Amino acid sequence: MTGGSEGAQERPVDWGDVRRCFPILDQEVSGRPLVYLDNAATTQVPECVVGAIAEHYRRDNANVHRSTHTLSARSTASLEQARATVRRFINAESAEEVVFTRGTTESVNLVAAGLAAWHGAGFSAVASALEHHSNFVPWQQQALRAGGSFAVAPLTEGGDLDEVALVSLLESRPRGIVALALVSNVLGTVSPVARLTQLAHERGWLVLVDAAQGMRHGTVDVQAMGCDFLCFSGHKMLGPTGIGVLYGRRGLLDELPPTAFGGEMVEEVSGERSLFERAPLRHEAGTPNYVGALALAAAIDFLEGVGREAVAERERRLLMRLEEGLRALGRVRVLGAPRRREGVISFTVENAHPLDVAVLMDKRGVAVRAGRQCAQPLLTEAYAVDRVVRMSPAFYNTFEEIDVALDCLERTMALLGS
Amino acid sequence: MTGGSEGAQERPVDWGDVRRCFPILDQEVSGRPLVYLDNAATTQVPECVVGAIAEHYRRDNANVHRSTHTLSARSTASLEQARATVRRFINAESAEEVVFTRGTTESVNLVAAGLAAWHGAGFSAVASALEHHSNFVPWQQQALRAGGSFAVAPLTEGGDLDEVALVSLLESRPRGIVALALVSNVLGTVSPVARLTQLAHERGWLVLVDAAQGMRHGTVDVQAMGCDFLCFSGHKMLGPTGIGVLYGRRGLLDELPPTAFGGEMVEEVSGERSLFERAPLRHEAGTPNYVGALALAAAIDFLEGVGREAVAERERRLLMRLEEGLRALGRVRVLGAPRRREGVISFTVENAHPLDVAVLMDKRGVAVRAGRQCAQPLLTEAYAVDRVVRMSPAFYNTFEEIDVALDCLERTMALLGS
Repeated sequence: MTGGSEGAQERPVDWGDVRRCFPILDQEVSGRPLVYLDNAATTQVPECVVGAIAEHYRRDNANVHRSTHTLSARSTASLEQARATVRRFINAESAEEVVFTRGTTESVNLVAAGLAAWHGAGFSAVASALEHHSNFVPWQQQALRAGGSFAVAPLTEGGDLDEVALVSLLESRPRGIVALALVSNVLGTVSPVARLTQLAHERGWLVLVDAAQGMRHGTVDVQAMGCDFLCFSGHKMLGPTGIGVLYGRRGLLDELPPTAFGGEMVEEVSGERSLFERAPLRHEAGTPNYVGALALAAAIDFLEGVGREAVAERERRLLMRLEEGLRALGRVRVLGAPRRREGVISFTVENAHPLDVAVLMDKRGVAVRAGRQCAQPLLTEAYAVDRVVRMSPAFYNTFEEIDVALDCLERTMALLGS
Repeated sequence: MTGGSEGAQERPVDWGDVRRCFPILDQEVSGRPLVYLDNAATTQVPECVVGAIAEHYRRDNANVHRSTHTLSARSTASLEQARATVRRFINAESAEEVVFTRGTTESVNLVAAGLAAWHGAGFSAVASALEHHSNFVPWQQQALRAGGSFAVAPLTEGGDLDEVALVSLLESRPRGIVALALVSNVLGTVSPVARLTQLAHERGWLVLVDAAQGMRHGTVDVQAMGCDFLCFSGHKMLGPTGIGVLYGRRGLLDELPPTAFGGEMVEEVSGERSLFERAPLRHEAGTPNYVGALALAAAIDFLEGVGREAVAERERRLLMRLEEGLRALGRVRVLGAPRRREGVISFTVENAHPLDVAVLMDKRGVAVRAGRQCAQPLLTEAYAVDRVVRMSPAFYNTFEEIDVALDCLERTMALLGS
């Protein structure tokens, strides 16, 4: 989540041009210009990504691997080129460390189920209280099924991970794996995963990072982080639905038992037994979503074209404007005050139900999300709330849109008598 | 796999018009017009499906479920409309019986892993020797892990399932699940799954049908079949990559333990435990591939627009022409002589390696597949061959293309001195 300042400063970005790559943003909802502030759920897809999908189906489409004809060779090359692009994007050591999955959830489940099959009752996991259900329930459930161990690492009052408590958990429990969000999908807390990984490694634990919310905002460098696994989804970083990534250190991925079987992951099959391929094929049973993969690569190219540091900087400034505006409104309670916040901000409104707030804002064209944000333990146990309103700007949003959203929220509160 | 004769006869199909919906077919490979005969691996995607994907990203894209804004409501409606379309297409009783997965392989694995978690050492499975690895290895491996039981049902000499042997297996082993391909991806054998399901049910077994190869060629009616589970992929029936379906009888899907956890499949989560939703959400952890689902629905609409019986009839005639031509060539050994064959035909050529045949045919623009077809037990144990050449025409192919392919094969054989 760090990055140099080169690039962005050399050539100023024309954000109007960038925005025009997203025609979906140029429409009216409820008779007003759409203001899309639900980017933590799904980002929009630039025309070049849509074009890459269409082009592939119109020119090069065929099943991949063991190719014996031209279209198949082209599709295979696109898939492997996409793997190389992801490798570069996250700075993995080799492309073999990049497994294509359906998304973050499948990536986490693949590791959790694999470790449970590997260690049985010796399975041990700790998840932070910041986690999305997708990086929480898999660990809890695999521990239950395997007869292993599961614990939750608590937060500080501000909504950061409590490092002292974490270390104490790691030292008092059977060694296993720690599951950490790079960026919380509720509070926006950015966790210092490189340092936490070091703390965990020193105590003999593995670390899995859920980077679903962290891929747009800066540079994710798995070697700098030092983590053992990293998971993310295409659809939260300008890519299509149905594609995600599991990064894993090569040696680990080759040892991790596969959890899905069939097709290309098999090397030899007889009636009695099967031999499995090495990573990444080992963990990619069935025809991979090769069109999803090449579209994800196109999204990465687009992000890098705009400039990752420029994107991160703009998203920080948009979020800052939003947070200031929210705090200036009385009767709004912003959740958490983490040391560093990115991408999302959640809040409640005095005497108003979050769902009512979101529905009324939609009536003025402003798209925000309200609900449990798939993070029930965090909301109920750490903040004693059931639901929140969440806003999550992306770099293609404008400062004017932030002001429109704040104004809309204020009117909504007036309407609700809160 | 049966169907009325209405539709096709009422209005003759203009196959030239149909073919023009697939611009990928209108190109040269190796300086000659492409002849694409690898449809059993992946079918091509009509323009209307590509258009549906692009339109969604340009107008309606947002994450689904618990929607509190307009774009999210539109995306959710598209997803649930797609579920309703699939329900109608396979004649399921209710849309809750339709789970969206990444593809056939994931669908089979979901059932196999779920049953293994449910029954432990009581897990028992029988797969036919016709099965693709994806409907074979999951059963074998889950049996191994659970300490359960796995057996392979043998074939007759012609390549049909040996029903007497199957019944004897079902009567001599602990009750469990039978895994059957509707259409073999190597021999093209169409199995009488309705009758086999009845035989299995009478003996207390469940039945899972792998219909990956059977969705284009006729009418798949799960109620007429009577099967408990049915699996298929979008990309083998004009849909995009990364989307598939698991049909399961409602009661069963609600009982089957989920194998992936997170996001929308969870009803309640605390530190200690989680409550899961009912089907289909229960089995759809994480953001679903909603764009893949709506594109699959567009593919279904296209297929129904052409007419399923017309498609089936044309594919039968194309395959018949191909089989006659292959048999007329000396030194070609066609695998199997099943009572009914659809979609694919595999063969070996005397004194020629299948891979060489495929590579040389590609040099004249003809795309066929060569290899083990992910069905090693079938090839090595039933036919004592290591690899085969496979051709699989689809309804958008022409009879002229079949003749070109046969001519190309003959020239290739001459070149290889076989």
